[in-house]
Amino acid sequence: MDSMNGTDHESETPTLKIKAFFESAPPLKDAAEIETKLKEFVDRNSSSSENGKANRVVCVTSGGTTVPLEKRCVRYIDNFSSGHRGSASTEYFLKAGYSVIFLYRRGTCQPFCRSLPDDPLLECFTSTDDSSIQVDPSHAEVVKRAITETRSAVNGGFLLKLPFTTIFEYLQILRMIAVSLRSLGPSAMFYLAAAVSDFYVPWESMTIHKIQSGSGPLDMRLAQVPKMLYVLRNEWAPVAFCISFKLETDTDILLGKADMALKKYKMHMVVANELSTRKEEVIVVTEQEKITVRRDTTQAGADVENPLIKLVVDMHSAYINHSDA
Amino acid sequence: MDSMNGTDHESETPTLKIKAFFESAPPLKDAAEIETKLKEFVDRNSSSSENGKANRVVCVTSGGTTVPLEKRCVRYIDNFSSGHRGSASTEYFLKAGYSVIFLYRRGTCQPFCRSLPDDPLLECFTSTDDSSIQVDPSHAEVVKRAITETRSAVNGGFLLKLPFTTIFEYLQILRMIAVSLRSLGPSAMFYLAAAVSDFYVPWESMTIHKIQSGSGPLDMRLAQVPKMLYVLRNEWAPVAFCISFKLETDTDILLGKADMALKKYKMHMVVANELSTRKEEVIVVTEQEKITVRRDTTQAGADVENPLIKLVVDMHSAYINHSDA
Repeated sequence: MDSMNGTDHESETPTLKIKAFFESAPPLKDAAEIETKLKEFVDRNSSSSENGKANRVVCVTSGGTTVPLEKRCVRYIDNFSSGHRGSASTEYFLKAGYSVIFLYRRGTCQPFCRSLPDDPLLECFTSTDDSSIQVDPSHAEVVKRAITETRSAVNGGFLLKLPFTTIFEYLQILRMIAVSLRSLGPSAMFYLAAAVSDFYVPWESMTIHKIQSGSGPLDMRLAQVPKMLYVLRNEWAPVAFCISFKLETDTDILLGKADMALKKYKMHMVVANELSTRKEEVIVVTEQEKITVRRDTTQAGADVENPLIKLVVDMHSAYINHSDA
Repeated sequence: MDSMNGTDHESETPTLKIKAFFESAPPLKDAAEIETKLKEFVDRNSSSSENGKANRVVCVTSGGTTVPLEKRCVRYIDNFSSGHRGSASTEYFLKAGYSVIFLYRRGTCQPFCRSLPDDPLLECFTSTDDSSIQVDPSHAEVVKRAITETRSAVNGGFLLKLPFTTIFEYLQILRMIAVSLRSLGPSAMFYLAAAVSDFYVPWESMTIHKIQSGSGPLDMRLAQVPKMLYVLRNEWAPVAFCISFKLETDTDILLGKADMALKKYKMHMVVANELSTRKEEVIVVTEQEKITVRRDTTQAGADVENPLIKLVVDMHSAYINHSDA
């Protein structure tokens, strides 16, 4: 259970905790550059719509965050996430006319690249006798799609890719995005598919040097990461449409945890998924209902993100209309 | 200090510990396939030499191992390592006439790919108007080199690439390699550049489900990974030339730790490197001497692996000659 350590002032605690978290976090190296990119992206999407309304913009988070165990980092705790859900969802959001800020873990799956092999350069290309580089015919289609679709979305100004590695980078960039999307009101969406660490070693209490493998076992105490969803909804982006994800390996506790996240963090939607079946189906939990979304098994290569994003877009439309009324 | 928990039977303990480690480890999924590849590779290198002696074969390990914290793994501890040292060294070993078994962490740097950008497919290629794929002229040389050199080494039978992720996979594959290289005697070398976890959660004591972010901090107790270097030298590959690496962030303790590793595990050489200067210089520690190896700063793009591998090859030659005598 996500208890608040027994305090009566539940609403104050996450805010103070996240304040302390940011104050002790190592500063973001390329903050100014990210700020500029975000400003350009949001400006373009605020002014480019035809009907006077802002474009719809979704921030998709993808991949897992790391938690360093040492300041001069040799070891860290990582959360498993291939980034498949986030990158696939980004493709469908773009198709549905959204502009996407793709906040992704370095090295994880990229939009339009899902069908590529692990090491596309070495597996998809050959060099010919006159030593020019050629795509292997068996991979030609997926390689072409990856390159052309990515270039078109990025150059067209519909896709902004921002990488992170640590939990410190992730939360700081997410806050910058949230603040910069405020001007879009309910047209902005957060689709938080990243696997965010629950536990971390506070920067100020972290050892500077590599932990020595001494005699005997290593005992570690990890602190809880402050509940960022609460602060996102209540302070950073109070008007945006917010969707969080709940991944569990134990089906018995999944829906209970999803329900709790919905109420506690006032999410508009929680996508509940179980580790072993997450590519087959997810359960969309809202205040009103629970909807099971399954991939179309009659179609080869069909994924669960296709119907999921259709449902998300419909619900976002209803939310915008309701906000206008 | 790497004490042996106060036992008098120091030489027995690592063997028993590693036995227990393997017995409790999850079995390797593709063990049969790896076995076949190794057999073909070693057979080819045992018979192809002209003077009746076996080819020189080096097993280069590269990248960091992960330690799962849950059986249905969502979280794990990782060791930072880009795989740059291992992949660069592999290139120079191939150039020096060695055949290389490259045991690498999935997703880390590959031989001949060091100069490529993070996401080579999306950054190096463009699609033309007739929708064919072209290499961007500014990246043409590095892309061509990566593809042609890799194909040539793999297809020529000089380079066998084997990936791992967890500490369990790493140690099991390393043992298979060590056993299969025994027939090559002193012509075999182990160049252990991978960043191997010192601590792990024993499989049988691991939680099955995702650890819940409950109320308050998380306390973890991690066991020490058995000292594999000892078993490698004493049992798996007693005649091979063995080089291990010592990375520290604290210069003051680095050489002491390197000396200790040399004596305790009977390594032929320990390469000592400090995190912040590891791309500029390393110190080669042997029983006889300590040699500082620096990259040639007068040459643009020169790396420390070039002179390092020259020194390693010379010392391996002396070792082989000494064994013959």
